[in-house]
Amino acid sequence: MSHDKKLRSQKAGLEPGSLVHLGEVKTSTPTLMLLEYDSNGLYEQELSSREQIDGLVRRPGCTLWLNVYGLQDPDLMAAIGKRFGLHPLVLEDILNTDQRPKVDDYEDYLYLVARLFDYVPHSRQLASDQVSIILGKDFVLTFQERPSGTFGALRERLRANRNQVRRLGADYLAYSLLDSLVDRYFALVEQVGDHAEILETSLINRRPRPGVLQSIHRHKRQITTLRRAIWPLREVLNVLLRSHDGFFRAETVLYLRDVYDHTVHLIESLEDLRDLLTGLLDVYLSAVSNRVNMEVRALTVVATIFMPATLIAGVFGMNFHVMPWLEHPDGFWFAMGLMGAIATIMLAAFWRRRLIG
Amino acid sequence: MSHDKKLRSQKAGLEPGSLVHLGEVKTSTPTLMLLEYDSNGLYEQELSSREQIDGLVRRPGCTLWLNVYGLQDPDLMAAIGKRFGLHPLVLEDILNTDQRPKVDDYEDYLYLVARLFDYVPHSRQLASDQVSIILGKDFVLTFQERPSGTFGALRERLRANRNQVRRLGADYLAYSLLDSLVDRYFALVEQVGDHAEILETSLINRRPRPGVLQSIHRHKRQITTLRRAIWPLREVLNVLLRSHDGFFRAETVLYLRDVYDHTVHLIESLEDLRDLLTGLLDVYLSAVSNRVNMEVRALTVVATIFMPATLIAGVFGMNFHVMPWLEHPDGFWFAMGLMGAIATIMLAAFWRRRLIG
Amino acid sequence: MSHDKKLRSQKAGLEPGSLVHLGEVKTSTPTLMLLEYDSNGLYEQELSSREQIDGLVRRPGCTLWLNVYGLQDPDLMAAIGKRFGLHPLVLEDILNTDQRPKVDDYEDYLYLVARLFDYVPHSRQLASDQVSIILGKDFVLTFQERPSGTFGALRERLRANRNQVRRLGADYLAYSLLDSLVDRYFALVEQVGDHAEILETSLINRRPRPGVLQSIHRHKRQITTLRRAIWPLREVLNVLLRSHDGFFRAETVLYLRDVYDHTVHLIESLEDLRDLLTGLLDVYLSAVSNRVNMEVRALTVVATIFMPATLIAGVFGMNFHVMPWLEHPDGFWFAMGLMGAIATIMLAAFWRRRLIG
Amino acid sequence: MSHDKKLRSQKAGLEPGSLVHLGEVKTSTPTLMLLEYDSNGLYEQELSSREQIDGLVRRPGCTLWLNVYGLQDPDLMAAIGKRFGLHPLVLEDILNTDQRPKVDDYEDYLYLVARLFDYVPHSRQLASDQVSIILGKDFVLTFQERPSGTFGALRERLRANRNQVRRLGADYLAYSLLDSLVDRYFALVEQVGDHAEILETSLINRRPRPGVLQSIHRHKRQITTLRRAIWPLREVLNVLLRSHDGFFRAETVLYLRDVYDHTVHLIESLEDLRDLLTGLLDVYLSAVSNRVNMEVRALTVVATIFMPATLIAGVFGMNFHVMPWLEHPDGFWFAMGLMGAIATIMLAAFWRRRLIG
Amino acid sequence: MSHDKKLRSQKAGLEPGSLVHLGEVKTSTPTLMLLEYDSNGLYEQELSSREQIDGLVRRPGCTLWLNVYGLQDPDLMAAIGKRFGLHPLVLEDILNTDQRPKVDDYEDYLYLVARLFDYVPHSRQLASDQVSIILGKDFVLTFQERPSGTFGALRERLRANRNQVRRLGADYLAYSLLDSLVDRYFALVEQVGDHAEILETSLINRRPRPGVLQSIHRHKRQITTLRRAIWPLREVLNVLLRSHDGFFRAETVLYLRDVYDHTVHLIESLEDLRDLLTGLLDVYLSAVSNRVNMEVRALTVVATIFMPATLIAGVFGMNFHVMPWLEHPDGFWFAMGLMGAIATIMLAAFWRRRLIG
Repeated sequence: MSHDKKLRSQKAGLEPGSLVHLGEVKTSTPTLMLLEYDSNGLYEQELSSREQIDGLVRRPGCTLWLNVYGLQDPDLMAAIGKRFGLHPLVLEDILNTDQRPKVDDYEDYLYLVARLFDYVPHSRQLASDQVSIILGKDFVLTFQERPSGTFGALRERLRANRNQVRRLGADYLAYSLLDSLVDRYFALVEQVGDHAEILETSLINRRPRPGVLQSIHRHKRQITTLRRAIWPLREVLNVLLRSHDGFFRAETVLYLRDVYDHTVHLIESLEDLRDLLTGLLDVYLSAVSNRVNMEVRALTVVATIFMPATLIAGVFGMNFHVMPWLEHPDGFWFAMGLMGAIATIMLAAFWRRRLIG
Repeated sequence: MSHDKKLRSQKAGLEPGSLVHLGEVKTSTPTLMLLEYDSNGLYEQELSSREQIDGLVRRPGCTLWLNVYGLQDPDLMAAIGKRFGLHPLVLEDILNTDQRPKVDDYEDYLYLVARLFDYVPHSRQLASDQVSIILGKDFVLTFQERPSGTFGALRERLRANRNQVRRLGADYLAYSLLDSLVDRYFALVEQVGDHAEILETSLINRRPRPGVLQSIHRHKRQITTLRRAIWPLREVLNVLLRSHDGFFRAETVLYLRDVYDHTVHLIESLEDLRDLLTGLLDVYLSAVSNRVNMEVRALTVVATIFMPATLIAGVFGMNFHVMPWLEHPDGFWFAMGLMGAIATIMLAAFWRRRLIG
Repeated sequence: MSHDKKLRSQKAGLEPGSLVHLGEVKTSTPTLMLLEYDSNGLYEQELSSREQIDGLVRRPGCTLWLNVYGLQDPDLMAAIGKRFGLHPLVLEDILNTDQRPKVDDYEDYLYLVARLFDYVPHSRQLASDQVSIILGKDFVLTFQERPSGTFGALRERLRANRNQVRRLGADYLAYSLLDSLVDRYFALVEQVGDHAEILETSLINRRPRPGVLQSIHRHKRQITTLRRAIWPLREVLNVLLRSHDGFFRAETVLYLRDVYDHTVHLIESLEDLRDLLTGLLDVYLSAVSNRVNMEVRALTVVATIFMPATLIAGVFGMNFHVMPWLEHPDGFWFAMGLMGAIATIMLAAFWRRRLIG
Repeated sequence: MSHDKKLRSQKAGLEPGSLVHLGEVKTSTPTLMLLEYDSNGLYEQELSSREQIDGLVRRPGCTLWLNVYGLQDPDLMAAIGKRFGLHPLVLEDILNTDQRPKVDDYEDYLYLVARLFDYVPHSRQLASDQVSIILGKDFVLTFQERPSGTFGALRERLRANRNQVRRLGADYLAYSLLDSLVDRYFALVEQVGDHAEILETSLINRRPRPGVLQSIHRHKRQITTLRRAIWPLREVLNVLLRSHDGFFRAETVLYLRDVYDHTVHLIESLEDLRDLLTGLLDVYLSAVSNRVNMEVRALTVVATIFMPATLIAGVFGMNFHVMPWLEHPDGFWFAMGLMGAIATIMLAAFWRRRLIG
Repeated sequence: MSHDKKLRSQKAGLEPGSLVHLGEVKTSTPTLMLLEYDSNGLYEQELSSREQIDGLVRRPGCTLWLNVYGLQDPDLMAAIGKRFGLHPLVLEDILNTDQRPKVDDYEDYLYLVARLFDYVPHSRQLASDQVSIILGKDFVLTFQERPSGTFGALRERLRANRNQVRRLGADYLAYSLLDSLVDRYFALVEQVGDHAEILETSLINRRPRPGVLQSIHRHKRQITTLRRAIWPLREVLNVLLRSHDGFFRAETVLYLRDVYDHTVHLIESLEDLRDLLTGLLDVYLSAVSNRVNMEVRALTVVATIFMPATLIAGVFGMNFHVMPWLEHPDGFWFAMGLMGAIATIMLAAFWRRRLIG
């Protein structure tokens, strides 16, 4: 069970809407980065105190983007909530960092949750951060547990105003955030896919290493983890595409449809990978079973050659006073010949049986 | 088959709506706890007799919460049913404690059934209690088989009027009850998850203990049991979210949506756990199979070394009068050398075959 | 393939609606039992001839229930069909006793098919009878292949007019019939469940008896059989709940919903049982595989102890003229010591390898 | 891949609607059988030339049924197409005999495709023919690859006018054709079911014959084949039941519903059979595995008895000058007793271990 | 992970709609082939420069078909996009050649993506190209990664104006393109099917070659690959059939329905093949397991015959001074007889046990 869930159960008994940060603290101090822009310009400011949030004055006609790294300060969150009129449940969900991706419609704004993943080489597992996006008519708020570099390129694009991106408003900004997230998933799915193909190559060439099974098991779990994040994200995008609540303009919806297609693509890739891994499990188990087969066969061959010969040696080692061949000068070679002949016949007989059955 | 179901079949032939308590008696005397409150105050009373129920006078504008522990007294139940205008089928369902979670809409009130679980360390199984909730316009009735402590924190919150909870009416109370139930599930799912992860760690490190299979089997059944309770509860919440019958106000529906999200989360966690356990079963079976493999290999090696050597010993133990080497002073060492050489060659040959196949 | 289906294929080529009884004859003579009742009284009569049916006069305002045991007399059926205006296809379906549960709406009446099961200890299988129920505005017809005792308690209740049941009309009667059927299923599902739990207990305690697999297989088939009957019955009830054709009054629909819930409950119990049996199959196969494992290990141990010792004995049995130790007075004990030492070392080595791999 | 599909790929590149017969030619010359009837009479004629089709005059008020055996003459087909106003795609589908069952609505007529099966004892597989049915307002056209005898009984019924079948028009005729087809399926499903039950009986009695696996595999494929034909046929019937295009009158729809029920029944039977076969596979594999188990055990017993005894014999065969017991007159029997004692003790020990693990 | 996806992740961070060709360059220079036609004639031209595209003048009333091979020149693509008013996202999707089949509706035109496959004998895998089709009111644009010969026959048909195909407009052209694609799939599915049947034949005849498992695994992956392309194509066709946006006239929709049926057929064939391969896996694993069984049995037989005989030989090789039979002139033959008798008895006993269990 993950660390997050442990914390959740500790919260049982608190009233709903109580602001307690449930989750690991992953960054030292919360950082608030404010961007405000329109076609004419872009204003950038780093906020650090509750007062600055309370005193925030909006530039008319501008799109505002407030990004928060680090969720451990409930007071700060409450101040933001108050300034932008967020529902207590939204704040609660932002702070409880084990939400599954979803979209909630609160008339004045949309609340979106998505998840970010990092491959942790040490534990060979995927670590997960929660990203909360709030889309209002002319503002976007984003909340992350720590800086991840996901939105850096987007920020650069806004500063440079490439393709006149600053002209396009809050809904396009929200789309761009989602697009950045989904692009990140592609890299992860590729990575899992590369590992799976290395496994496949090594298995098809019939050299099952020990640990293959554990490896398949681990990859399957990673796929499950990613699928659990992407599947509801697809649903979120589907809801956004079909809804008519005016948060997204028709022209932005075309772009959302594109991100939606990407999520479908990702899910299919993950399903293919899962099928591949299941197939590899079959191949592996069969290879192991073939091994046992080869070894049992070796054992059979060994026993088949040596048991009769050993018997013959034993027979001529008996101490009867009267025994055939013993006094014959070539008796020894007679016995050796007999051993060889029997071994040859039995081997031939078994080879033939193997062909039959 | 559980004890409850046994009792159900004994009821076959009775007319519908007949009040017979089907289920274990889990508490000595029924306890009735009455809470009535509005923004101004909270009145608390413990009822003990049928007459007190019949004579119950409502305080106007107040929200009433009547909680019943222990269902073994049909007369008492009938009195409550009469006082609050409950349909005979509702009373029957309250008393038959093997209902699956559901919601029934009876115009004047909603009838909700949910299930509570306790982990019984002794039998390593989950024991289940039924919780019935009846939500009217300004009252909530709850029926439990025994005190479980689930609603204690909520009762405290009402008494302390934290966040002005007393102002929020019967629908918010019903929501809070459901929220308490779902929070309890998180603890159980965590516990199963912890056990599963211990199993995983021990299996991945390749030390399958005996009893692993029984353990996986038991955990799978616990997951099935929890899933059977949470899945229909999710449906119940979904129905409440989508219905427009006026029992829940728009602002409470936001909170219900939150509980709904939690149940979805729980179900996904259970599915992940089931996938994990199925994967562990594969890992376990493969580990066992690898074991057999190792032992067959050991047997092959032993046979390969000793059978030819034993044959050579037997050959030189034969009693032929004329045999080579016997009279040579180093004959014994010739034979020993031959044994060693053959063993070495055969081992080498088998090692090479192992590399090939 | 069941006996019923054999008969069905014999009917190929006959025109639709032709009245041929397809099914085993399970009772000697058809019995027709007529009950007519209202709040004031109940009239009971046993009909025996075609003429009595033709001449049947309805008491105005009364609810009529005609129950038929034994379907082998097509003329009698045709008479009933004519008297109550049944469609030829209905009569055909009543006589072909391998229908799956369904409801057909024929404007003037509903035609319901359900199935009854009996556990036949002899063949350890479930035998199945067809029950046809026709619900008109003020009459109910029931057709069974033989007396089964399922509706006896209901008949008693009508005679005694408990809970004023006679006041409640034909739709309540139809509900009561369905309720009796579903109650019967509970007993069967319990029985299968009991057997499954006995199997589980014996397997978890690690003593797989021979025949366990056959037993699991048989139980799985029984579950499939029951599921095939209950699943469509649930659909039938669902259709009745959602339809607005006026055969069921609003107050009876509440009761139908109750039976519907019971069928959902039954299906879930069957699915749990199927999961349980599948899990037991895994446990069983693994127990068998563990057995092989133990025996291969025993074989390895035996070979490991004795093969080197036998070789040493053989070596000192060789007839070389010059051999070490032979003439030493303690030579024999040297050899014995060598055997023991090698056996000890190899055992130790294998035990260590077993711990490693 | 079947012969039909091979032919289809040869058609790649031709324009759509081009009339090429794709499929084996299964009959020597096409036969066209014309029936025209109303309540008053029935006129029957065999057509043989293109001109006869072009010159066909309809009797007003009559229902026309034209049945074609053999599809290898595209000109003839084109003539029929022209005479009855068929769309080029319909003709193409009639001639490409690997269609899956479907219904296409072409305003003036419905085009139905179904499949007929024959069990070919030689290859133990199911051979499949395509049956095309075109239902117009007052005519029915049927196209088959060869005479199959499926519609013979129906033709007889029309000639005899049993149950005044001639009065019932083209839609009832189309229904009767579908009914005949479905009745045929029952026979096939029964046959597969009989084979499966023979397999089951032989397996449950624990005598797995070689070839059982191949047999299970073959039956599974037959079931898949049948399911592939019946499943879409059910969909076709469902579409006909729900459509309101006026080809079927309300009274015929009742009969169609009956055929629909039969297809549902068939599909369930096939699913049961598939479950049964999957279960049998488990039973078979387990029986085989039990066998290996028994034989490994036998091997263990043999080794356990003889290895120690052989060692003792070897020990007393050593040539040490000083050895205990050798000169004792009962030394031989001491040794024999020792062998027997050790064998007994080891056997006992192993039996006990077997009981433990 | 495929080459395409690798490239996609390199694109992360670029703004949406940026024209970068993601995919292998599969042809040297882009080729643009222009066809314009109406009932009266057909004009054909090869375009090679950006200027020719910019200066393109439409012949009124004509249908235009512009086919592009090779996507590596973004400028050219941008010029086409500008000339025909394509959305930046369409151009992006055309250039990113790992799209899954889909249809996007952009008011003025439809954008369709499909995939082409080639079997690469070298790697025994399927290579995939992307085909983009844009259908406007009177024009069709097609974009392929390289010449594949798929549309050659169609081009010939247009030039020859067979069946007056030139009269039928842009929607019929788009249909014809899709039809050509689907016909190509049939050939591929056949090929996979042929391989699967060869595998089946060889397995049913009980000669499992090494590498069978790898072969099954490879075929399963090919089937998955094809399914991933055909399944969404079916959805695309379904959308086109159900949409009412006027791109397809009613008469062309009939033809589309035909292609739709073909895709359904293909999917079913693939599912059958997958079932077949899964079944073959079972057969193969069981054959391998039978092998082990046969060899263990052989080992048992060998051990059973020789162990007792070797013991007897050892016994009479002991050096006791007093031993029975040794001095008897036929003692040797007594011993041999004893060996033979015991071998016979044990063999008989084991044969009987085999019959029992």
